[in-house]
Amino acid sequence: MSEMNLQVLLASRPTGWVEEGNFSIVETPVPEPGAGQVLVRNHYLSLDPYMRGRMNDAKSYAAPVAIGAVMVGGTVGEVLRSLHPDFKAGDLVVGYLGWQLYGLSDGTMLAKLDASVAGKSVPLSAYLGVLGMPGVTAWVGLMDICAPKAGETVVVTAASGAVGSVVGQLAKIHGARAVGIAGGAEKCRYVVDELGFDACIDYQAGKLREDLKAAVPDGIDCLFENVGGEIFDTLLARMNPFSRIAVCGLISQYNSEPQPMKNIGSVLMNRIKMQGFIVSEHPQRWPVALQELGEAVAAGRIKYRETVAEGLRRAPAALIGLLKGQNFGKQIVKLI
Amino acid sequence: MSEMNLQVLLASRPTGWVEEGNFSIVETPVPEPGAGQVLVRNHYLSLDPYMRGRMNDAKSYAAPVAIGAVMVGGTVGEVLRSLHPDFKAGDLVVGYLGWQLYGLSDGTMLAKLDASVAGKSVPLSAYLGVLGMPGVTAWVGLMDICAPKAGETVVVTAASGAVGSVVGQLAKIHGARAVGIAGGAEKCRYVVDELGFDACIDYQAGKLREDLKAAVPDGIDCLFENVGGEIFDTLLARMNPFSRIAVCGLISQYNSEPQPMKNIGSVLMNRIKMQGFIVSEHPQRWPVALQELGEAVAAGRIKYRETVAEGLRRAPAALIGLLKGQNFGKQIVKLI
Repeated sequence: MSEMNLQVLLASRPTGWVEEGNFSIVETPVPEPGAGQVLVRNHYLSLDPYMRGRMNDAKSYAAPVAIGAVMVGGTVGEVLRSLHPDFKAGDLVVGYLGWQLYGLSDGTMLAKLDASVAGKSVPLSAYLGVLGMPGVTAWVGLMDICAPKAGETVVVTAASGAVGSVVGQLAKIHGARAVGIAGGAEKCRYVVDELGFDACIDYQAGKLREDLKAAVPDGIDCLFENVGGEIFDTLLARMNPFSRIAVCGLISQYNSEPQPMKNIGSVLMNRIKMQGFIVSEHPQRWPVALQELGEAVAAGRIKYRETVAEGLRRAPAALIGLLKGQNFGKQIVKLI
Repeated sequence: MSEMNLQVLLASRPTGWVEEGNFSIVETPVPEPGAGQVLVRNHYLSLDPYMRGRMNDAKSYAAPVAIGAVMVGGTVGEVLRSLHPDFKAGDLVVGYLGWQLYGLSDGTMLAKLDASVAGKSVPLSAYLGVLGMPGVTAWVGLMDICAPKAGETVVVTAASGAVGSVVGQLAKIHGARAVGIAGGAEKCRYVVDELGFDACIDYQAGKLREDLKAAVPDGIDCLFENVGGEIFDTLLARMNPFSRIAVCGLISQYNSEPQPMKNIGSVLMNRIKMQGFIVSEHPQRWPVALQELGEAVAAGRIKYRETVAEGLRRAPAALIGLLKGQNFGKQIVKLI
């Protein structure tokens, strides 16, 4: 094979905000699959907030990426060569092959897509978003932890993002009132006008507390938290008795010291149930989640939006933009 | 009846710490029961941290005590006269008749005690502590929310108190490792030597973080939180993956602004389940809790200690002492 592989490696650990200098981009030979292995040509790479955590050396729920190693990430692509009994050349697959054009897999965490829809009625990139990890994250946090009843108020932060946008639309499908928090008037317009949320608060307007009173006059029954810090603290003070909080992400503190929170007393005062979760630890819920999400997307009841970076060399800048909230909807990188 | 009733009223709302001047003590005629009512002579009054919240006018899970009204509180006593079909003179009863020597009840929240043990093998005051609201609070938070497995580490704050002392002993009965946090070396000695906890940390020694590393080298699986603030924040940083937190009380912030907390990120990082609860909202769990607690107390497997204030006039000072951690074990007031 004459073409070369392109890989993005972690060159150094960031202190505070990620910089492009934390990555290095290298050309390497396209690898040959060994016995039991599959060679995949990646078409799309997913960029997600959790990647910031993997760049640290700190104790977390997943091992850090080693210096000099290929950055981790979800990918969708096509099998080029297979020495694995379950895959054959031409299969479309979703997996975790990282920031590179070509990857080898032994089949672990590699799933074949339904060729009758993948790349036809459903774009390949959707398997990294609404029909992939972010969509299932929204489903598990909302349905299993928040468990909204019809008529209850669901608030979701980072509401225009890959996860938040699905949370609000799912909440609506299940009869709840959906209120988003997003950064900027344009994102808020999209959340209400395109996605059908009942309301959206632009936290950049700087009066979250007042706007919240108007948008959730009856308080919050379910909070799907992606942001953390001062926004989370403000929302805590508006929680209702017996409300539920799914803690999915705390993007505001991935690059800095955590903002101290004053309203933890609300957990006792309102008998709140709060739970942190990681979607990969709920594998038994993926099939039912993907079933409902697939049907809702096909029926046009769940919409999504993508920000596409063109080419692997643009991945570092795109991740930095994502961490600063500059993307709009699911951030992906087009590799082909 | 020639004897007069004595009542402690809420005279004014405290700002910060409670003062004796926030109460007034009045003599009033002993009331006469009307149709369907019971007149009770109270023998013991329970003093508990939740009372501080009732003195505020703020929104909380229970209505505030009105200015000029009798302070609320749990009591145990004897029926003097009854115009209620379920009670007769001589019955020993536990109820919520407040800070007074005599009280009327329509039977709501009034329970007859088993005359074969109450006041004989089990002292009446125990029904305000280990076999009353504090004991059931310990049971519900530990068994239903924390749900420790054998071999896991349970940490409880205010460990020598009415609730905390039962939490640790119950944890031991169920095969867990029990570690207490208490204020002062004497309380810690009691918790380990008398109650049989595996370890106890005196937070007044000023090196909680270091002492915690030594006392819970494998991290915390279950936290029963009574204190809040900086102690809670420090414990959050030592929680294990998939650990549970029962938020029962936040006594450190009842008299002051809440201490901001920095370690909420641990909820996500460690996929913690945290839940606030109020024992009165779990009435269906009282019988099973009291069954187990009664058997454990009778068998000497759960011990308890009381601080007794003599006479109703000493109740205000005793509550102030309780809020400052000056009591040792369950704080009660002897009324007869």
